[in-house]
Amino acid sequence: MPRDGSGGGGSSSSSSGTGANGGGDGDAGCLRPMDAEQLRECGHRMVDFVADYYKSIDTFPVLSQVQAPRGIYLQPGYLKKLLPDTAPSKPDTLDALFDDIREKIIPGVTHWQSPNYFAYYPCNSSTAGFLGEMLSAAFNIVGFSWITSPAATELEVIVLDWFAKMLKLPSQFLSTALGGGVIQGTASEAVLVVLLAARDRTLRKHGKTSFEKLVVYASDQTHSALQKACQIAGIFSENLRVLKADKNKNYAIAPQDVIAAISMDLSAGLIPFFICATVGTTSSSAVDPLTELGQIAKEHDMWLHIDAAYAGSACICPEYRHHLNGVEEANSFNMNAHKWFLTNFDCSLLWVKDRSYLIQSLSTNPEFLKNKFQASQANSVFDFKDWQVPLGRRFRSLKLWMVLRLYGVENLQSYIRKHIELAKHFEQLVISDSRFEVATPRTFSLVCFRLLPLTSDQDNGRKLNYDLMDAANLSGNIFISHTVLSGKFVLRFAVGAPLTEEQHIFAAWKLLQDLATRLLGSS
Amino acid sequence: MPRDGSGGGGSSSSSSGTGANGGGDGDAGCLRPMDAEQLRECGHRMVDFVADYYKSIDTFPVLSQVQAPRGIYLQPGYLKKLLPDTAPSKPDTLDALFDDIREKIIPGVTHWQSPNYFAYYPCNSSTAGFLGEMLSAAFNIVGFSWITSPAATELEVIVLDWFAKMLKLPSQFLSTALGGGVIQGTASEAVLVVLLAARDRTLRKHGKTSFEKLVVYASDQTHSALQKACQIAGIFSENLRVLKADKNKNYAIAPQDVIAAISMDLSAGLIPFFICATVGTTSSSAVDPLTELGQIAKEHDMWLHIDAAYAGSACICPEYRHHLNGVEEANSFNMNAHKWFLTNFDCSLLWVKDRSYLIQSLSTNPEFLKNKFQASQANSVFDFKDWQVPLGRRFRSLKLWMVLRLYGVENLQSYIRKHIELAKHFEQLVISDSRFEVATPRTFSLVCFRLLPLTSDQDNGRKLNYDLMDAANLSGNIFISHTVLSGKFVLRFAVGAPLTEEQHIFAAWKLLQDLATRLLGSS
Repeated sequence: MPRDGSGGGGSSSSSSGTGANGGGDGDAGCLRPMDAEQLRECGHRMVDFVADYYKSIDTFPVLSQVQAPRGIYLQPGYLKKLLPDTAPSKPDTLDALFDDIREKIIPGVTHWQSPNYFAYYPCNSSTAGFLGEMLSAAFNIVGFSWITSPAATELEVIVLDWFAKMLKLPSQFLSTALGGGVIQGTASEAVLVVLLAARDRTLRKHGKTSFEKLVVYASDQTHSALQKACQIAGIFSENLRVLKADKNKNYAIAPQDVIAAISMDLSAGLIPFFICATVGTTSSSAVDPLTELGQIAKEHDMWLHIDAAYAGSACICPEYRHHLNGVEEANSFNMNAHKWFLTNFDCSLLWVKDRSYLIQSLSTNPEFLKNKFQASQANSVFDFKDWQVPLGRRFRSLKLWMVLRLYGVENLQSYIRKHIELAKHFEQLVISDSRFEVATPRTFSLVCFRLLPLTSDQDNGRKLNYDLMDAANLSGNIFISHTVLSGKFVLRFAVGAPLTEEQHIFAAWKLLQDLATRLLGSS
Repeated sequence: MPRDGSGGGGSSSSSSGTGANGGGDGDAGCLRPMDAEQLRECGHRMVDFVADYYKSIDTFPVLSQVQAPRGIYLQPGYLKKLLPDTAPSKPDTLDALFDDIREKIIPGVTHWQSPNYFAYYPCNSSTAGFLGEMLSAAFNIVGFSWITSPAATELEVIVLDWFAKMLKLPSQFLSTALGGGVIQGTASEAVLVVLLAARDRTLRKHGKTSFEKLVVYASDQTHSALQKACQIAGIFSENLRVLKADKNKNYAIAPQDVIAAISMDLSAGLIPFFICATVGTTSSSAVDPLTELGQIAKEHDMWLHIDAAYAGSACICPEYRHHLNGVEEANSFNMNAHKWFLTNFDCSLLWVKDRSYLIQSLSTNPEFLKNKFQASQANSVFDFKDWQVPLGRRFRSLKLWMVLRLYGVENLQSYIRKHIELAKHFEQLVISDSRFEVATPRTFSLVCFRLLPLTSDQDNGRKLNYDLMDAANLSGNIFISHTVLSGKFVLRFAVGAPLTEEQHIFAAWKLLQDLATRLLGSS
């Protein structure tokens, strides 16, 4: 499809080229919101805007400083002062919009794609992922049932099977068996839907008045998404067993603690039904012992869910796959392609071993959605509306397919390895400076470290490290985040932004060293 | 930001211009997935692809016929035969990808943006919405807390306040009061989060062992999302009161039926706590009597939720605003900007009168997300993670802001009015042909109609109308859907795709008339 010459995309404004309304301002009846040539012209301009943003992304403060025109500084409510109180009655030009984005929006953006972004976990964008988002927005279909766009459902099934094979998941997780994969928005939704499936499976067995007896097990390192899922599913708050994971196990859960807790609960007449294990915890990327947890779950007929939201990506490399050993006994497995796999947010991959449990919990079949090709009438199609919370869903498999097609598995493995190498470098740098300590051994691309407190320090380095983090983030040069491990305030340095190179690691370390010198000198 | 000359975007393939991998195929270590110039070049090519798609969108069969190379016809599993079994190890070119999209994906796409799409309800795309999706994908931030991108939260607050004012919602729904608006993915998630808020509010009052006594009220015309929300929230299935809405009330709920049901439930010791009202039901766009339902809810201290997913858009026009009269007594209100408001999917707007209930049900506050600007520490910011099911969230307010800015309220009102006019024309056409009947009076842009069965017809026209719909859809010329009203199989003709003009309405009607002639002749 050759490019139409009229789609100039230049930044100069011509009378027809500045609006996206496709009609004269005065002639409201003429709104042509999906005129192909308007779309072409405006689309080209947006591509240039975005490419220019990426070209200069490292010039922006990583953590938003909200330096709006009058130098407002991280001030809640900054934008309200810059925008009108009501929606405009008349259309505005694209030029005016771009000006506002540059002057009012971007100063309030935290640049997750900056090469100097090391906070939380990464949220990768890529050219392939971006193109996938564009195409998905262009089709703008709502793929709740197979019939509403067969390609959307079918591509999702195929790509999730591809991915399961890349991760060497047991064959039961494939769509060709009783399982299958589905794209959820986030890991929060993934754990929620499997918790619901497990809850209802158990209630069908024990009767629904057993609701208050249902017990969930996880470590205190498990993502808060599990707690939230329990709140939503109506699991009684006192029935969420949060077991302490210790430093001596590198913050992985101890199977004997799970066994002990289950045993106590059984004695009390409660019903243990769900274990959530993590491969790559949010605090420190700890890996729970899957094999042992699988045995426990099997013995007690419990549902085992594995949350590998972050570290799942690493497991496409043979040398990291062993972290998934034990997945054979899991009922469900989740990883976020939007974290460290170059697929733009949101794209959280969930596989289940037996899809019927999901469908039993989440299906509805109103008349207005009935059709001759539907899961409830013929077993030949999947209607993904019955695998998730919402009815509607975007065509998200496109971007994942494009990432896999345009980069290929080997490149993706190298990409992961490169970040882990960079994290190793950073870890070595920390070790080489005796003022710092590594808080827990690095497993993937996250380094947990802290500045050692002076002996006179009363809060065990909490303020010292908070101040170090705050100063680093306020410099605008990097963005890091923190956690607390064994009561210690610990800094997290997560490598994984798509533009991060060796030079950014060294510059970040230099900044942290300099700030440490200053902080230790002043304390 | 001027366009860089190097971003050609032409369709001819140069050696550097066909891949998005940013590195030689053989040199895996060189993957540069976010190279700005690669992004520019590939992005321009995708814009042309998308613009060309829109230019020829009316040449595709609206409902996918899955006419893959060998003429496969609506065959589940078609795509599996066309794609490999495993992900590619080596990268592929963008040209190859475009070929696959044209030859394998598009034949399986149901074209929701076609001017001849009249099924379900519309799901609008627009240039402004598309640009917003592009920019959101480009920033690719995860706006769970204010700090993770202040602009994302602040723009959402501002734009939702704008929209509340456009709809003339009571001032309590504004962020400046105790309420506020938030973008959910879908109306399903909107009704779920308010159901949870209402559930927990009631349980705090009555004790959590009252779980099994909680009762929900709605009509049988309410969207299945309510049933699903009840399943998720653990509301006992026998405690969802589905009250029959009759033809004589145009399928709106009868307040006296709600009063009677509540009264019976109270006598039985149950706890009525939630009413779901609809403005524009999915089957027939019926409008429930809000004022009366509000009085009932108030009297019994129940939560009233209003689902105006589809028809909410019409209420920005003064002449349709009266359908929201009574919203004053509602606790929450929802409309989908992604349906009929030119904002690409997903963008479902939810307002609550008291945000503290949402936050109490949905907040978690793990150490790794704590920061000095957070809702729990200072009341100056919103952390939208506590207003929704997932933790992560996209920068969705951008697209809504861009729709409002680039089109303006007056144009948007005209856009709505135009569709309603077109639907009126279609209704007149149906009335003018005595072989058809309008099944229930049209209120917005949906016409419910059917072909009258012959007196000898044993199933009251079910097969006749099914065959009419099926023939129309298989023609590829239009896509319509159906519902059942008072036991009658009824066809739904929903006007609202952004490219639909008068000519498409007439062509659709001509097709339906011709098919009717053929069907009646053969029966």
